[in-house]
Amino acid sequence: MTMKLYCFGESGNAYKAALALELSGLDWEPVKVDFFGGETRSDIYRSEINEMGEAPVLVDGDFRTSQSGVIQQYVTDKTGKFGGRDEAERYEVLRWVFWDNHKMSSQAGMTRFLMNFLPEDKRPADVIGFMQGRLKAAYAVLNAHLQGRDWIVGDGITNADMSCCAYLFYPEPFGFDRKDWPEIDRWLSNIENTPGWKHPYDLMPGSPADRA
Amino acid sequence: MTMKLYCFGESGNAYKAALALELSGLDWEPVKVDFFGGETRSDIYRSEINEMGEAPVLVDGDFRTSQSGVIQQYVTDKTGKFGGRDEAERYEVLRWVFWDNHKMSSQAGMTRFLMNFLPEDKRPADVIGFMQGRLKAAYAVLNAHLQGRDWIVGDGITNADMSCCAYLFYPEPFGFDRKDWPEIDRWLSNIENTPGWKHPYDLMPGSPADRA
Repeated sequence: MTMKLYCFGESGNAYKAALALELSGLDWEPVKVDFFGGETRSDIYRSEINEMGEAPVLVDGDFRTSQSGVIQQYVTDKTGKFGGRDEAERYEVLRWVFWDNHKMSSQAGMTRFLMNFLPEDKRPADVIGFMQGRLKAAYAVLNAHLQGRDWIVGDGITNADMSCCAYLFYPEPFGFDRKDWPEIDRWLSNIENTPGWKHPYDLMPGSPADRA
Repeated sequence: MTMKLYCFGESGNAYKAALALELSGLDWEPVKVDFFGGETRSDIYRSEINEMGEAPVLVDGDFRTSQSGVIQQYVTDKTGKFGGRDEAERYEVLRWVFWDNHKMSSQAGMTRFLMNFLPEDKRPADVIGFMQGRLKAAYAVLNAHLQGRDWIVGDGITNADMSCCAYLFYPEPFGFDRKDWPEIDRWLSNIENTPGWKHPYDLMPGSPADRA
């Protein structure tokens, strides 16, 4: 049965799950969530799709889960891919996925939202500046880790790469420029050159262009 | 060999790992990290302890890892405890641990830091107000989930509980009051009544009292 991923193109968190599904070769299809119309925060979405009021959500027959890190783990458990080749790599992959959720994507997604998807007169400059400072510290950690490495963990793409990269491919400004971080830039090219790779706006339905 | 956990009392993230170690019955001891003296951000800490520049860090012989969610998983893998009783519970536990890292603890830890551990004239009111709004949405999700439940997943304490509860036990104000959230309040009492439970300032070295 084809798995369904509730998602929308603008969501880096959804992209993490969609990219893992796509590169794994599993049979999946996107279900567009109308985030900008308030769907994820609606009572019906909370009661029938996800009590956490967010995307992505994966549905595989009777199984349903959310949080991109869990969906990535589910793909790994089903296919043996992207989770690390031995026990040490397995913990290291999970460590970077947690770090990303905790220290990078959480702040990057919020900052990009505030700077691009709120009306101009509602954008909180102090919050944006604060978040960008936190993000700069996160980019520095990632950039330093990638020195001498093609991938975050081991010799090929893993959930760690697919988690950490997600917001960094978007064109909307949020204070990240690949040219400022040469190791990150090189690593993002490695991901882009992976057979089957797609940009978020090509992999999932919905983009700012649709709402222009 | 006794495992070592690099930690400090004020860190809710460290508490998540310390509580899992303590309740598991594994042999562990804390190593105090001088976070407020800048130790986690020092070059030597980054090069020798954790490139991510943060606590907690677990050392078990030759094995070393960080991120509380990974340390909790390591405890689960070693003991069979706290990770869920079957496959469905296993994913559900991991889902709430990720949700906590992504949507609750990340913001709670920052807000508590800004409101309590920065000099009064350096506390950014706009950022604090913004974060508290995000946190209120997170508390509402958790409070709703706990209706009719004693634990976040299944019939006993899991990593999900030990992750989500961590910042909520601290006395320093950050915009959370147990009385406002009756289901969370009841659930926190369940955790406090678990045999062997300890408050963060009793489980790990370091507290604001030491620095007063």
